[in-house]
Amino acid sequence: GESAVSTAAVTAAAAEAFAPLDTFLRRHNGPRESDIEAMLHGLGFKTLDEMISATIPDSIRLTSPLHIADGEYAERELLAKLKQIASKNQVFRSFIGTGYTDVVLPPVILRNILENPGWYTQYTPYQPEISQGRLESLLNYQTVVADLTGLPAANASLLDEGTAAGEALVVCLNAAKKKTRNVFFADVNCHPQTLAVLKTRAEGFGADVVVGDYSSFDFVKIGDRLAGALVSYPDTYGNIGEYKALADKVHDLGGQLVVVADLMSLAVLQSPGEFGADIAIGNSQRFGVPLGYGGPHAAFFATTTANQRRVPGRIIGVSRDASGNRAYRLALQTREQHIRREKASSNICTAQALLANMAAMYAVYHGPEGIRNIANRIHRFTQVLAQAVEAAGHCVENRSYFDTLRVKLADGVNAADVHARAAERKINLRRIDACTVGLTLDEAVSREELVHLVEIFGGNAAGIDALAAAVAPTVAESAAIPVGLVRQSAILTHPVFSRYHSETEMLRYITQLQNKDLSLANAMIPLGSCTMKLNATTELIPITWPEFSQIHPFAPREQTRGYAQMIQDLEEDLAAITGMDATTVQPNSGAQGEYAGLRSIRAYQASIGQEHRNICLVPDSAHGTNPASAVMAGLKVVIVKCDAKGNLDLADLEAKAKKHAANLSAVMITYPSTFGVFEDGVLRAIEIVHDNGGQVYMDGANMNAQVGLTSPGHMGADVCHLNNHKTLAIPHGGGGPGVGPICVKKHLAPFLPGHPELFKADGSPFSTVGPVSAAPYGSAGVLPVTWSYIKLLGGRGMTEVSKTAILNANYMANRLRDHYSILFTNEHGMCAHEFILDTRPFGKTAGIQAIDVAKRLQDYGFHPPTMSWPVPNTIMVEPTESESKEELDRFCDAMIAIREEIREIEEGKQPVGDNVLSHAPHTIATVSAEEWTRSYSRQKAAYPLPHLKERKFWPSVSRVDDTYGDINLICSCPPMENYQ
Amino acid sequence: GESAVSTAAVTAAAAEAFAPLDTFLRRHNGPRESDIEAMLHGLGFKTLDEMISATIPDSIRLTSPLHIADGEYAERELLAKLKQIASKNQVFRSFIGTGYTDVVLPPVILRNILENPGWYTQYTPYQPEISQGRLESLLNYQTVVADLTGLPAANASLLDEGTAAGEALVVCLNAAKKKTRNVFFADVNCHPQTLAVLKTRAEGFGADVVVGDYSSFDFVKIGDRLAGALVSYPDTYGNIGEYKALADKVHDLGGQLVVVADLMSLAVLQSPGEFGADIAIGNSQRFGVPLGYGGPHAAFFATTTANQRRVPGRIIGVSRDASGNRAYRLALQTREQHIRREKASSNICTAQALLANMAAMYAVYHGPEGIRNIANRIHRFTQVLAQAVEAAGHCVENRSYFDTLRVKLADGVNAADVHARAAERKINLRRIDACTVGLTLDEAVSREELVHLVEIFGGNAAGIDALAAAVAPTVAESAAIPVGLVRQSAILTHPVFSRYHSETEMLRYITQLQNKDLSLANAMIPLGSCTMKLNATTELIPITWPEFSQIHPFAPREQTRGYAQMIQDLEEDLAAITGMDATTVQPNSGAQGEYAGLRSIRAYQASIGQEHRNICLVPDSAHGTNPASAVMAGLKVVIVKCDAKGNLDLADLEAKAKKHAANLSAVMITYPSTFGVFEDGVLRAIEIVHDNGGQVYMDGANMNAQVGLTSPGHMGADVCHLNNHKTLAIPHGGGGPGVGPICVKKHLAPFLPGHPELFKADGSPFSTVGPVSAAPYGSAGVLPVTWSYIKLLGGRGMTEVSKTAILNANYMANRLRDHYSILFTNEHGMCAHEFILDTRPFGKTAGIQAIDVAKRLQDYGFHPPTMSWPVPNTIMVEPTESESKEELDRFCDAMIAIREEIREIEEGKQPVGDNVLSHAPHTIATVSAEEWTRSYSRQKAAYPLPHLKERKFWPSVSRVDDTYGDINLICSCPPMENYQ
Ligand SMILES: Cc1ncc(COP(=O)(O)O)c(C=O)c1O
Ligand SMILES: Cc1ncc(COP(=O)(O)O)c(C=O)c1O
Ligand SMILES: O=C([O-])O
Repeated sequence: GESAVSTAAVTAAAAEAFAPLDTFLRRHNGPRESDIEAMLHGLGFKTLDEMISATIPDSIRLTSPLHIADGEYAERELLAKLKQIASKNQVFRSFIGTGYTDVVLPPVILRNILENPGWYTQYTPYQPEISQGRLESLLNYQTVVADLTGLPAANASLLDEGTAAGEALVVCLNAAKKKTRNVFFADVNCHPQTLAVLKTRAEGFGADVVVGDYSSFDFVKIGDRLAGALVSYPDTYGNIGEYKALADKVHDLGGQLVVVADLMSLAVLQSPGEFGADIAIGNSQRFGVPLGYGGPHAAFFATTTANQRRVPGRIIGVSRDASGNRAYRLALQTREQHIRREKASSNICTAQALLANMAAMYAVYHGPEGIRNIANRIHRFTQVLAQAVEAAGHCVENRSYFDTLRVKLADGVNAADVHARAAERKINLRRIDACTVGLTLDEAVSREELVHLVEIFGGNAAGIDALAAAVAPTVAESAAIPVGLVRQSAILTHPVFSRYHSETEMLRYITQLQNKDLSLANAMIPLGSCTMKLNATTELIPITWPEFSQIHPFAPREQTRGYAQMIQDLEEDLAAITGMDATTVQPNSGAQGEYAGLRSIRAYQASIGQEHRNICLVPDSAHGTNPASAVMAGLKVVIVKCDAKGNLDLADLEAKAKKHAANLSAVMITYPSTFGVFEDGVLRAIEIVHDNGGQVYMDGANMNAQVGLTSPGHMGADVCHLNNHKTLAIPHGGGGPGVGPICVKKHLAPFLPGHPELFKADGSPFSTVGPVSAAPYGSAGVLPVTWSYIKLLGGRGMTEVSKTAILNANYMANRLRDHYSILFTNEHGMCAHEFILDTRPFGKTAGIQAIDVAKRLQDYGFHPPTMSWPVPNTIMVEPTESESKEELDRFCDAMIAIREEIREIEEGKQPVGDNVLSHAPHTIATVSAEEWTRSYSRQKAAYPLPHLKERKFWPSVSRVDDTYGDINLICSCPPMENYQ
Repeated sequence: GESAVSTAAVTAAAAEAFAPLDTFLRRHNGPRESDIEAMLHGLGFKTLDEMISATIPDSIRLTSPLHIADGEYAERELLAKLKQIASKNQVFRSFIGTGYTDVVLPPVILRNILENPGWYTQYTPYQPEISQGRLESLLNYQTVVADLTGLPAANASLLDEGTAAGEALVVCLNAAKKKTRNVFFADVNCHPQTLAVLKTRAEGFGADVVVGDYSSFDFVKIGDRLAGALVSYPDTYGNIGEYKALADKVHDLGGQLVVVADLMSLAVLQSPGEFGADIAIGNSQRFGVPLGYGGPHAAFFATTTANQRRVPGRIIGVSRDASGNRAYRLALQTREQHIRREKASSNICTAQALLANMAAMYAVYHGPEGIRNIANRIHRFTQVLAQAVEAAGHCVENRSYFDTLRVKLADGVNAADVHARAAERKINLRRIDACTVGLTLDEAVSREELVHLVEIFGGNAAGIDALAAAVAPTVAESAAIPVGLVRQSAILTHPVFSRYHSETEMLRYITQLQNKDLSLANAMIPLGSCTMKLNATTELIPITWPEFSQIHPFAPREQTRGYAQMIQDLEEDLAAITGMDATTVQPNSGAQGEYAGLRSIRAYQASIGQEHRNICLVPDSAHGTNPASAVMAGLKVVIVKCDAKGNLDLADLEAKAKKHAANLSAVMITYPSTFGVFEDGVLRAIEIVHDNGGQVYMDGANMNAQVGLTSPGHMGADVCHLNNHKTLAIPHGGGGPGVGPICVKKHLAPFLPGHPELFKADGSPFSTVGPVSAAPYGSAGVLPVTWSYIKLLGGRGMTEVSKTAILNANYMANRLRDHYSILFTNEHGMCAHEFILDTRPFGKTAGIQAIDVAKRLQDYGFHPPTMSWPVPNTIMVEPTESESKEELDRFCDAMIAIREEIREIEEGKQPVGDNVLSHAPHTIATVSAEEWTRSYSRQKAAYPLPHLKERKFWPSVSRVDDTYGDINLICSCPPMENYQ
């Protein structure tokens, strides 16, 4: 009746009146209302919906709006709401250890790296000329790792210790001359989660992981099948193994010794390299990176020169630029899966750059002396505690220790009581069994906490001063360290580790590096397939709240209810977004998601007696991680062609699916395709695969074009991953952290990855499928970013986001259409959220390659788009919704101006090979050089468009020479004499 | 006995073993241990103490070490300790109003300005070529103020609304042709603290402040003695006065109308300029600046073109650079007290630049539409509340309102009960009397809070939706706004306010401006007399904790126990540092401290029957604020000479002290002197003044050389101020915030400034002396910085700091001695913590002035030192303890290289007037210009030293033309056509 109507009207009016004004969508999206109108007009549409209809096949459009529970908070509300959830976490001091410790993060690093968009919004440094700052910092990281491990070839981070162990296994397999050398020994006293991930990894490679006690194991029994052996140094219970003899034994059998090392202890213990390790891996978390409930942290990987070209992941190398100056760059890229594809043995792409930078800066700030002091202090506390605990009648079971004790409780003392006393003091210890507890001390421990610890064990706290005075002040004099394992060699000898020890110097060093690097704080980074959208401050603020950052991954459930609620929200929301039924947030990157998803498929198939299904169809346009992940999951890759329009060749797909029907496990489809098009054959493709007994894996890297408009689940896919660091606002951090959740249909839900510490509500193991990450929820510490993004925008907002991303891309494509040919659009001439510009013709007409266009874009103040992927010698542009029309126009103006510069070459006005593109980018040093002998003017080089005089980002080196760097590989800080 | 000895040894060993490693002193000080040795050696000393003995007269050295209670926390401990204290503050939602409201600070501004050292460590933009970013932002601020007030000449901030009212009074007095025009009317319904500060200010100028009701006051009675009239718009109880008739009346009598305006309401109300105001002042706090328990916030000041050259404080103007491009700069500096000295009528120096930048950015982010929406939303809530409150039987007493209601409670309802109900909901209302309460809504208010408010008044919360639907959606249609006072004119029409509305664009705008500005994050800022030391992250972190930032200055005592404890600690510690007995932290700057200190002296003298004492001796070397403050305190300045060595001429002092003995009020001494020397005549000087009945005021700008070594109190001074933004680590923020506490001897303690809201423990007024700041504790919100600094370092650490500051200065002086003459050292050739380099000889020998050297230093990547103060045409260098030896050397190398460049001119190798100094600084555009016709090379211009190729900060404009800018004064954003 009337009153109902007016009640509704009142409610609506009141809602409008009372609505908060700090709404997020308009802050997140770049174009203003009026811009959108103009942009649509230029494309010939009246409304966004009309445009979407011309872009996305009707057949796949969602039939009802995306619904997100509790969405569309204003920014202030969001923070209040999340604070409420966060407060359900209880911040205990965790001495659980097991690979994770509390840290003292130097505030100057917290503020100026972790909380600084100038660092966290950087992209992977594929464009070295505008990335010298973080390249230097990552080289510092490699130097820290190489120094401490005593192994010369280190990489720029891996995802976590568990996957690093897996990568080490594969290096050992690859190094082996024979396929039959496929047994890998792992010591039982490695961290349980490391062993679990290792075992998962081994499966796909058909390797046998044999777990045993290294000191009694009969290696000879394995003989020439031994690929390698993994031991932990110190081990998970604290003992410091003497592995020299083991190294000899393993080497004698032709295998390699892999040592999981604790970076902090290496400051004072003999390095693995020195006692014969071939590979050292581990977690650098304790170099200043918060616990974050398990991640993100940077794992490290170091090895011998012999293994150098087998190192997985990214390696920073030293090379030179076109002016002959030193310049850093990503080295040995030919090892990576985007080149090696199904021959790759690692799928790592996004790693942990931001966290590696933090760890490196921690070492820079403390220096060799500072790090050693920290290590010795930890050890001194540990000695005091060990003695106090023994004095109280308990027994420290490990003969030797650095920072970790395994305490067998005195007769009649119950572990449960000890844990209860600990909990009263807001302290967590490691749960081992009913009469044994473990603990690991860290750099944050204080005298007051030591008193608590002694009391927890019923010891005499009053005695600790006397003990402290009595114990060895340094590791060198300590009886707890095996003779011969005290480090004699120097650490961190490079001057970079001795220069920046005051906060002022440190701040300036960070700032100086930052200013060499183009981040989203400077300009658009239109990287196709990477979705460099806004990483909003409101989304980032919560990750450094102690309630999220100071939680140990194995903290008891009652302390992590806030995380549980947030993760459950996320699992539900991600399932809603993807149209799936269940989610895991465990994978630490998109590639890990792929691998996890394929494993779930295989586990499901095994569960219905189809473990023989081992064929994975992969389109030739797929991202390199796809075939690599398939191989890692033990699948054989069969390539499916694409047609000339960039669409899946359905005939080829059908033929291959039929041919392999008996063994077909899965197809991997990226949607919209890596060519940036919503292909309408997708439903048919899915049908073909299903008809032939296969499952459909959808690569979600391009989800930003789908959210709220269609979904993998809606289309019929069985599983997909998401790149939260693309679609869902986690910053790229210069190449990580990443979060790559997978979402699955109901039948796959039981086969999501488990974890030794992951349980169902009833306490039973979450899953029988092995973990893909060391921590149960992967990089849990950055999940608040995605949670916030989703809850700020809600279903409606995220749908607007997708539309705007598509609008921005098509607006640009349309502006550039007359100047470049746009590869691969649909029948209405529309691209999805990205598009490929064809630069191939210019090779013939002007001697210009995609790389020349890319480098020249740097002169216009932009980060170049994705280069030569997925089509060689082209560039792929993805603006994202967060870019304003002004910024899109600035970029298009630059591209058009570059086209004119190419035309000058075509018309003979600039010589081929000696023109403003071939010499790009131009540094300040170049354009202010005394001599100027170029065929173009300084002004043209420096300020090709007038607005650049007002605002321009300058490359800090000239074009970097890749070949030189790969031939003369240097991947730690070069000696000082090179610094002149 | 033996056991006692060994107990002590055990305790010491344990203390060492358990000591935390994140100690602060070594992070704060620049030089490393080994550097210090080398530096001392070069100066001919073995120890720091030996050096100090040669620097500071024995006669004034402290006889026991400086003691600070609970000092020397490690960084992590410090934060934990301060968090504990902070948690004693209770964060209520404060609707107290009275000039302060809660805000929604856009997170992008929080993170990238307030929490960003790139912004908060900037110095006042006296060097425009390396300050164009914040100059642009401050110009935006002036434009916001000019636009909203409707008055064209705005300045770049004042300290607070109260002092701004005082400044306005003085402008009115100065504008008057006759001295007898000295009556100033103030409406009774201005904020009480504004009236209180105004009255204090009037005293020194012999002006009469008459407080009355503007609507009934008989102005004709005052006639031509009327200098001006001050009214509040809206007034303190919310009423929106119609002041057009008043303006006419005041103008008819020859006075000026000053309007205290609320910036937010001006977005929707007619501007003061439109109804005839001559001056508008107020607080810009509600444009995104947190409450901070009363400050810091930027006050604004805008006036007519006729008053333009009388505007107090700093004004940003538009000028051009040597290349003819637009460039911003500080305009009209000849108005300032460092030029006008005792003829100055304002002592403002440090203002509130950082907060003005935040307010400006808030306007940039929201734009005209956004600001209007916020204002309208506030008003809509207020209408709803007004109606709900009236429906509950209460009476809203103000006829009109924007956001503030004065509620006369219904019969039988007690204000105490209302406040109690509010407190249950963690809400504060304004206390007016037993049956009246006040409240002011703000942009942060939510529907939920409105429900609470209605409930607090016993109203029907269920009815608010209907009310919201019924009330006027905008001010334009609201019956609560007087007819004719709805704003018709546009606001914020400049494009800068419409471009940066997405977070991405905003972030880039902030970054782009930041990158034009040299801050401590880039290089040393060796400004003599400014002490640009490290502003450590740990010190800054607490200021954005809600427990400190979200407290209303008039919140009840039980909610502010954390602040009370911290402020009491500070008062005690500052007294210990200065050797005094009592402290107030109220003054918002050093200059306000001077003024407050002199007023305390005068009040004390009055209390002993000596109000006639009105002579203030001021050395001719004094900072300009000294004579200006003396004049403001109603004193007559008598100048005392300095001798050729820069010391106080004791004979002249004695002669003048004797001559004026009968009326001698005080002397102002800066120590070490502004010439940078510890004069040993200081004790005699103090004695002379005391002997002649005067009090001794010590200017503490140079306290960084004294702490722990000597002190004003120890020397015999009666009162001193401290510049916490110099000595005690509060960042300069590009020209504010400042904190200028004063410390006094016992006899002066009762005469420290009071405040209407400042009480003794027994509830009686704290002091009968009027306040000098609008808030009881001034810029309380940044006091955690100083508290942290002191508690991190302790007495021992601060003493080391002073020694190191002196070492650094002497090290530099010694390195530069052979190249420049150093003015004013003591008999051992030692300077204090700063020194003056004489550039005067180069005028004759090379046509080079101090300014040329300063600008050339920019080419070397440095911020120039203080120029032409205290000695014209010299430069004064103060490195501070935070600079490393490397940085000192880098600076010395630059100065030495510049000396060689001057020599080239002297030797005729470069022409006078057309050389690398006279054309400095050089921009990238200059050194990459097509044509090069200079007498020196591009390389010499750009990279005079090799390390500059690796790292260089570039000026963004060429030398700025001051004269042009002052003649063609433009002090709001220039129209767009100028932007090409
Ligand atoms: C299509 C596609 N799939 C997978 C990935 C791998 O994702 P990640 O880097 O998170 O491992 C990418 C990364 O760029 C991608 O573009
Ligand atoms: C010697 C001296 N006194 C007083 C002041 C004024 O201090 P403030 O700028 O805090 O008002 C200064 C500022 O530079 C100074 O150097
Ligand atoms: O004026 C100063 O900011 O010290």
